[in-house]
Parts: sequence; structure tokens; C-alpha cells
Amino acid sequence: MPADAPIYDRVALIGLGLIAGSMAHAMRRGGLVGEIVGTARSAETRDVAREIGLVDRVVDTAAEAVAGADLIVLAVPVGAMGAVAEEIAPHLAPGATVTDVGSVKGAVIEAVGPYIPEGVHFVPAHPLAGTEHSGPRSGFASLFDNRFTLIVPAEGSDRDAVARLDALWRGMGANTEEMDADHHDLVLAVTSHTPHLIAYTMVGVADDLRRVTDSEVIKYSAAGFRDFTRIAASDPTMWRDVFLSNKEATLEILGRFTEELFALQRAIRTGDGELLFDYFTHTRAIRRGIIEAGQDTAAPNFGREPTT
Amino acid sequence: MPADAPIYDRVALIGLGLIAGSMAHAMRRGGLVGEIVGTARSAETRDVAREIGLVDRVVDTAAEAVAGADLIVLAVPVGAMGAVAEEIAPHLAPGATVTDVGSVKGAVIEAVGPYIPEGVHFVPAHPLAGTEHSGPRSGFASLFDNRFTLIVPAEGSDRDAVARLDALWRGMGANTEEMDADHHDLVLAVTSHTPHLIAYTMVGVADDLRRVTDSEVIKYSAAGFRDFTRIAASDPTMWRDVFLSNKEATLEILGRFTEELFALQRAIRTGDGELLFDYFTHTRAIRRGIIEAGQDTAAPNFGREPTT
Repeated sequence: MPADAPIYDRVALIGLGLIAGSMAHAMRRGGLVGEIVGTARSAETRDVAREIGLVDRVVDTAAEAVAGADLIVLAVPVGAMGAVAEEIAPHLAPGATVTDVGSVKGAVIEAVGPYIPEGVHFVPAHPLAGTEHSGPRSGFASLFDNRFTLIVPAEGSDRDAVARLDALWRGMGANTEEMDADHHDLVLAVTSHTPHLIAYTMVGVADDLRRVTDSEVIKYSAAGFRDFTRIAASDPTMWRDVFLSNKEATLEILGRFTEELFALQRAIRTGDGELLFDYFTHTRAIRRGIIEAGQDTAAPNFGREPTT
Repeated sequence: MPADAPIYDRVALIGLGLIAGSMAHAMRRGGLVGEIVGTARSAETRDVAREIGLVDRVVDTAAEAVAGADLIVLAVPVGAMGAVAEEIAPHLAPGATVTDVGSVKGAVIEAVGPYIPEGVHFVPAHPLAGTEHSGPRSGFASLFDNRFTLIVPAEGSDRDAVARLDALWRGMGANTEEMDADHHDLVLAVTSHTPHLIAYTMVGVADDLRRVTDSEVIKYSAAGFRDFTRIAASDPTMWRDVFLSNKEATLEILGRFTEELFALQRAIRTGDGELLFDYFTHTRAIRRGIIEAGQDTAAPNFGREPTT
């Protein structure tokens, strides 16, 4: 993908956090696009982006950023997408594609869709990659390598626009798949949203106990707890919006979760060792599948570097 | 700690899994002891241990292993400790120390204590370290480095025997602290046992859904779920025994957990974004504490090696 055949001539990144920043690095690594313009609501974020040269040009408003862009990426919290779409709508160039990287698709389509003018393509997407870090300094070029990006075209989406966005994501290292919005939101409720809520809850419980101090929890976390704290350290605004906007699917999976948890709790109370053993044996297979699919490392403890 | 001043002259490892194997490697690395004798219930495990030279001498029975040993380490699942103690009791040398590495202390003290003969010291302990792997090939010398080992002396334990075991654990790289059995079991219910149960449950839910396939769960696991699957891949026998033998504390913490989870669930249902945001902001601080205490890496995604 040489620079003389860019997939897009000008990309506008609205929001300059972990995902948009990593996209900027990955697009440059692959020589995939012409100019990268970026903006963020906070002046501090824009200053950092300028200082580290995150994109080619940092501008102060979303309206300025989208002018003349043939790809516009909405990379703001899900709850802010609608307002941004309203702001940029009058400034979008005909033939341009608007996409987003939100973790929920139904709510984003509902919020953004109505603002997309005739002649502009709207192709929602969601890269399934991230870290517990956030902000303009947190991005890196390899974030999407071998991870999946789900592309969620609306009904009647222009197939050429979809193919072009797909090529960009593959160029950034991702595997891509298409999915409809409802299924996306259910799959993510299982693989991401409910696990995050559970991790937040467990960390909250540990913090709240009087008889076990925070210092004890911290010192003895290597016994399992520290894995939970990583995802419970993710960006609070992003996650608030995720839960509020994927309410239905998250509540459904939470219902299943508590049902199962109560069954295991009952087995503990009644001393049903066989049920526990069978349950725990079964779950090992899923881990094996994830490793074989290249979605995690087989090294013990994720191959954490020594922390001594 | 030169080899000419060993802390123990002969150590007997009963059980040759992840913890005992790592102890063998760590004791050799530090030149901490004289001879290391080992045994395991399964002939296959003993054969592997012989083949890889895990210990100096592999014997077929626990009774043989403890003969002439001045430290005996019970490294079997918690539910098997009592039977092993009964088996070895007649063969223990006067002045020897018996210790264990079980994840629960109250139940082990109850099961093992009565079999310890007059003149033999019993000093329970628990290294807070592990990986999701198990078996005689899974151990490594650095497993305990900078992790905590909790030493849980019974009332009236011989202080010299406690100090000697403490020196061994420090020689193997661990930090050590003393704690009473009840508090140990509560702390571990928070930092380890409940998180494991929750992880097992979440993986079970994902596996059980009809509308989301296992293949989808596996491919899209990088969105958060994969962190859960690591601890849900741990040894099923060990974990069955942990829950059955730390029933009271686990059920207490589970009760707190579901109470908190229902509060967050209610906030999602009623759209209380402020409650969610505040909760999620608060939990970040715990993660920071764990990193500052050297109990985890600050690298994104635990610094997982690329899995492409």
C-alpha cells in the first residue's frame, strides 16, 4: 500500500484518545492516507497532540477538521457522538464517508444516522482492541494488529464505501468482519461490557471492605485480583456511556451471569464438589481456543514482564 | 546463602505441581537446601519429574519421601491434605517442620494439625503466586520473586521453626508476612477466591449462550473477556477444594459482590450516569496502587507479547 495510492486523501479524527491516536500511528506506519487532521474538545489534548506531532494538523473545531476530508472518524465517547454529528453535518463534503469507533452500535446509529446528509456515506465500525490507558499519548501503531474490527454497515450502505473502509482497517493490521448492529451489541455485551462491569464491581467490593485494608488488597493482588483491576482502570466516561447506551443487552447478559453465579454459590453452600469440578473443567477449553486463535499469549500470566 | 550453609538439609515435596516444582527450581537457584526429595500420587507425574530432573530424588510414596527430611512441604490440593498428613505422621523425624502451600488456611490447620506428632513443628504458609498452568513441567524459579508468602503459625508454634521457614521463602525471592488463619482466609476470599469464581462464571455464561457462538467469543475476546479466561483456566481440582474449604468467607464476599452488582445494574436500568462515572473513577486508584507496589506491570495489556 504505497503512499502514492492513498486509500483516503484526507482523514479527520474527531477525538484524539487511545483509538484515534493508534489509528494515526497505524495509518502512518502503512502509508495508507494523505493528510491526517485531528481535533479534540479539550485544549489540553490538542496541545499534547501538537507537541508530539500525533497528526499532521491539529485544528480547534470539529467543523474545521471535517472540511475537505473524505474520511471522518468519530472517536469520542458514545454519548457524545450525536452532538458531534450535528455539529459537523453542514461541513461534510459530498461523497465523504463518516465512520465511528464506538463500542456500541445500535445507539450510535440512532444518534448519528439522522444527521448524515444525502450523498455522504455512514459506515459504523468498532475495533476490538484497547488498553487500560487513555489520552493522546496512549496510542501505538500495533494496537490493531491481528485484532478484529467489526464493520456494521447500515441498511443500504454504499458497498464501495464499505470496501474502502475495510481496506483501511486491514491496512492498519486488523482482521475485519461485517455484523449487524443488534448482534454486535449482544456479542460485545458478552465479550466486553459485562466483564468490565463485573471487574469494576469486584474492585469496588475490595475497596469497600472494612476488615481488609486497601494496602492488603494491593499487596496480595497477584493471587488473581490484579487481572480484574486492569480492565477496571479503563476510561470512566467511555464506560459510563457504553452501559447507558447498550442497556438492554448488558442487562440480559447480567441476568444470565447472576443466575449462573447463584448456581455455583449454591454448590459451594451445599458442598457439591462434582458440580464445581465439572464447571471449572469445562471453562479451560475456551481459554485454549482463544490462544489457538491468536487472540492471547500462552505464556504464564500473559507473559507479564518481571515487575521486581 | 551459600550451599555450605543450607537452611534445611533435606526437603520433601509431597505433590509435584506448579508450586512444588517452582519451589524446587527456586531452592536450587539460591543453593538454599541440601537434598530435595519429591513424590506425587500419579505415576505419570513422578515419571515426568524424573525425566526432567525436577528434584534430586523421586520416590513412590509420601512415607518414603519424608523419612529423614527436616522440612516437609504439603503441596497437594487442600482437600487431600488431611489424608497425606495421616499417611506421613508415623514417618516424621523429631524436630522436623511440616508446612503446606494451600490457598486456605483454617481448613488445612483443622485437617492436618491433629496428625502432627509431638516434637514436630507445623508452620502453615501460602505463597501468593501462580499461573494458569499446572503439572510438573509448569514450575519456574522466579515464580515467587517479589510476591508475598503469608506465614500462618498456629498458636504456640516454635519461633525458631517459623524463622527458618521464613528464611527459606525469602531465599526463594518472596516477601513474607505473618497473618492469622481467619484473616488470611478472608483476605484471600477477596483477592483470589471470589475473583476466580466470578471469572469461571463469566466464561461459563459466554460458553452457554445460544445466540453468540463460542467461535465469536474466542475471536472477539480481546475486548476484555480474555483477561477473565486466564484465571478461569486454572486447575479445577485445586479450585473445587478452595471453595469447599473456604466456604464461609467466600460466601460472605460473594454476598457483598452481588449487592454491589445489583446497585450498578439498577444504575444502568435507571440511567444514573453519575453513579456509574463516580464508581468507575474510584476503581482506577486501586490499579495505580498495585502498580506502585510492584505487584503488576504498568505496560498496556500487561505487556503481553504480540500474539500475531
